Amino acid sequence: MAELVGNLLVAQSGGPTAVINASLAGIIQEAGRHECVEEIYGGLNGILGVLDEDLIDINEEKAKTIEGLRHTPAAALGTCRYKIDFNRNPEQAMRDMDRLFQVFQTHNIRYFLYIGGNDSQDTSRKIHDEAVKRGYEMRVIGVPKTIDNDLPHTDSCPGYGSVIKYNAATVQEVGHDFGSMATDAGACCIVEVMGRAAGWIAGGTVLARRSPGDAPHIILLPEIPFDEDRFLARVRAVVNECRYCIVVVGEGLKNTAGEEIGADKTRLDAFGHPVLSGAADALAEMVQGKLDIKARTVKLGYAQRAATHFASATDADNAYACGAAAVRAAVEGSSGFMVKIVRDTDATGAVRWSTGLQPLGDIANVEHFIPRDWISEDGFLPNEKFVAYARPLIEGEVRFPVEGGLPKYVTLDKVPLEKLLPARA
Amino acid sequence: MAELVGNLLVAQSGGPTAVINASLAGIIQEAGRHECVEEIYGGLNGILGVLDEDLIDINEEKAKTIEGLRHTPAAALGTCRYKIDFNRNPEQAMRDMDRLFQVFQTHNIRYFLYIGGNDSQDTSRKIHDEAVKRGYEMRVIGVPKTIDNDLPHTDSCPGYGSVIKYNAATVQEVGHDFGSMATDAGACCIVEVMGRAAGWIAGGTVLARRSPGDAPHIILLPEIPFDEDRFLARVRAVVNECRYCIVVVGEGLKNTAGEEIGADKTRLDAFGHPVLSGAADALAEMVQGKLDIKARTVKLGYAQRAATHFASATDADNAYACGAAAVRAAVEGSSGFMVKIVRDTDATGAVRWSTGLQPLGDIANVEHFIPRDWISEDGFLPNEKFVAYARPLIEGEVRFPVEGGLPKYVTLDKVPLEKLLPARA
Repeated sequence: MAELVGNLLVAQSGGPTAVINASLAGIIQEAGRHECVEEIYGGLNGILGVLDEDLIDINEEKAKTIEGLRHTPAAALGTCRYKIDFNRNPEQAMRDMDRLFQVFQTHNIRYFLYIGGNDSQDTSRKIHDEAVKRGYEMRVIGVPKTIDNDLPHTDSCPGYGSVIKYNAATVQEVGHDFGSMATDAGACCIVEVMGRAAGWIAGGTVLARRSPGDAPHIILLPEIPFDEDRFLARVRAVVNECRYCIVVVGEGLKNTAGEEIGADKTRLDAFGHPVLSGAADALAEMVQGKLDIKARTVKLGYAQRAATHFASATDADNAYACGAAAVRAAVEGSSGFMVKIVRDTDATGAVRWSTGLQPLGDIANVEHFIPRDWISEDGFLPNEKFVAYARPLIEGEVRFPVEGGLPKYVTLDKVPLEKLLPARA
Repeated sequence: MAELVGNLLVAQSGGPTAVINASLAGIIQEAGRHECVEEIYGGLNGILGVLDEDLIDINEEKAKTIEGLRHTPAAALGTCRYKIDFNRNPEQAMRDMDRLFQVFQTHNIRYFLYIGGNDSQDTSRKIHDEAVKRGYEMRVIGVPKTIDNDLPHTDSCPGYGSVIKYNAATVQEVGHDFGSMATDAGACCIVEVMGRAAGWIAGGTVLARRSPGDAPHIILLPEIPFDEDRFLARVRAVVNECRYCIVVVGEGLKNTAGEEIGADKTRLDAFGHPVLSGAADALAEMVQGKLDIKARTVKLGYAQRAATHFASATDADNAYACGAAAVRAAVEGSSGFMVKIVRDTDATGAVRWSTGLQPLGDIANVEHFIPRDWISEDGFLPNEKFVAYARPLIEGEVRFPVEGGLPKYVTLDKVPLEKLLPARA
């Protein structure tokens, strides 16, 4: 494969994670080692910034800032939720593609790396296909990212190990706290975590259970349709045995009819939006109302995916490795692939991690759920197969500098590239 | 003062904290150094366990378990919210007192140490007064504990430094995350923290602000009555400037009429309880409904006071020192005091911590609020005086062992003492 000389453009997309910047650091530091990569540019706010020619010169950043990305949460380049959708709006999609390639050509972009989840891998695939179609020589590699852990073909998704490490520690701590206050009257605490379609995040909190009586006592997975009577009976049974019950639920729990628990359609705000509610509040209302057991809620929201202060070193290392591998693959001539994480478990149970490549066409629009045989028969807890899978992902703690008692995170200076194109219409 | 030989009884009360067990460790380890303290007993579930003669022999615990209490959240002995109330139920209160002194006498308790907040200090005071009245020689010392930081006379309350360290780190991380997703449409995230009457906990998140544009942008303190119009105007102004706005609110925010924001009296559950809601949800509804700005919530609940995984070493050390000082004071002949934390700031700004004693009669039913001149004129943020007070409380991180990627906390074996009294009526 002939050496391709030109500039590299990287952007971040979708919901941030605790380690999406570690992938960015891996890309930047690896790119610095290859002479064929002339300049390293960042696109602000994902593909939107590329469309708007909002590019920054990453070589203007301090080396210690780049190193600091390895322990900084959120998307340092900014992110977006923009989809180039040829099905729903083919004209806009074609205009977007024309504009993207104008920007690529104008800035001699020959390497395009996009860090993101399912939709972003789809965007990368379309850009790769267009480059081939247009005969524009550019190598496109997707870098996986999502706390949801729902990308296929990769062992796991960077971001997932950290979110379940923090969530499991939190559930363990809440369990200690709540248990130490328990009385014969009983009490129930519902912890709501992220995850709409798949139960990977909620399921990961099972790692907090070291002994049978430990929290969490019940994990409600979207893979198992919610049955109110069975749930309440189980809460009652746990409270009878332990005097308290810790329940973990993903935000998108649905009943057997496929309706979301906690979407309160009966109350609208001044603009006609349904009033904000959530699965945890709905379950707490159920437990308190139907069982007369005191119920409290914890809703971690964005805190869980940004918690670099207790992120997984394994996850951060894998995220970094995915970024670095993407650059190596592109420099060596690959295009149209997503980097994937590969796990190799030896006879002693020790895990070695490496990376591989998967065609982008295999990724898009495939969702990856918890296998049914990784969940207990009654559906209320992931089993030992899930634990064997998830435990290695939370090993090790990300180190970070502390200043004034708080983590010291970095921000990029974001020195803008001169815009050479007219603003887009 | 003549040496008093006998047994020591310690119990924990009220809501747990990340460091209430550090105080317990301080008591146990210090007590082990004094020969006049013969046995060390623990009362389970606070004063309730003493009434029920549910005592454990702490000398049966492993030394490494006691050491592990220094980094274990929740109340290792269990806790309660029971008040001996001579005003509302004098007969029950008198029966309780008789029973307590039966238990004290039967087990030759000569040192009684109670770790807790305002109500618990009141209980300690009553027990001390009764001991004097009954001529029963016993030394009673209160050990302060409360995340709310609302005890008077002490510089700060053990538990407070840790809750604000974790909350400030969380707000900082949520700010990074939320900010990296911001678009011109704007967005608002409301983080609900604990604290009903005083704003110490909400106020402490101001430590996350290193630069003027940093989160949190607005902190709603119960010391400043909530005004919806002024609040919405400020959210709009922050969103116009930063594209996003992070708001921190204590759970007990009240409007100018003294009504709690978020207590929804219009909806009752099957048992007639008001439906669970909260300040954050109410504010999010307001922002979304009145400003049409997307609003999300984070509700840390019990997670914040149990988060030993990012607790303050200063706080844990002070908590330990309070426990140890309580034993020394009692052994040296004091009774009827609460240990207090004393701060000594030298000319360079370096802080040295020590302990002192305050008569229990000065503590009960006095609440300690944020001074008005520690809050910005517009009421939306604590100012530099608050920061100077709070910053030293979050210095240092509690170290803890990790196993399987998660903190390894200890639990007591709780070897019960033989009950020598008939069960209470």
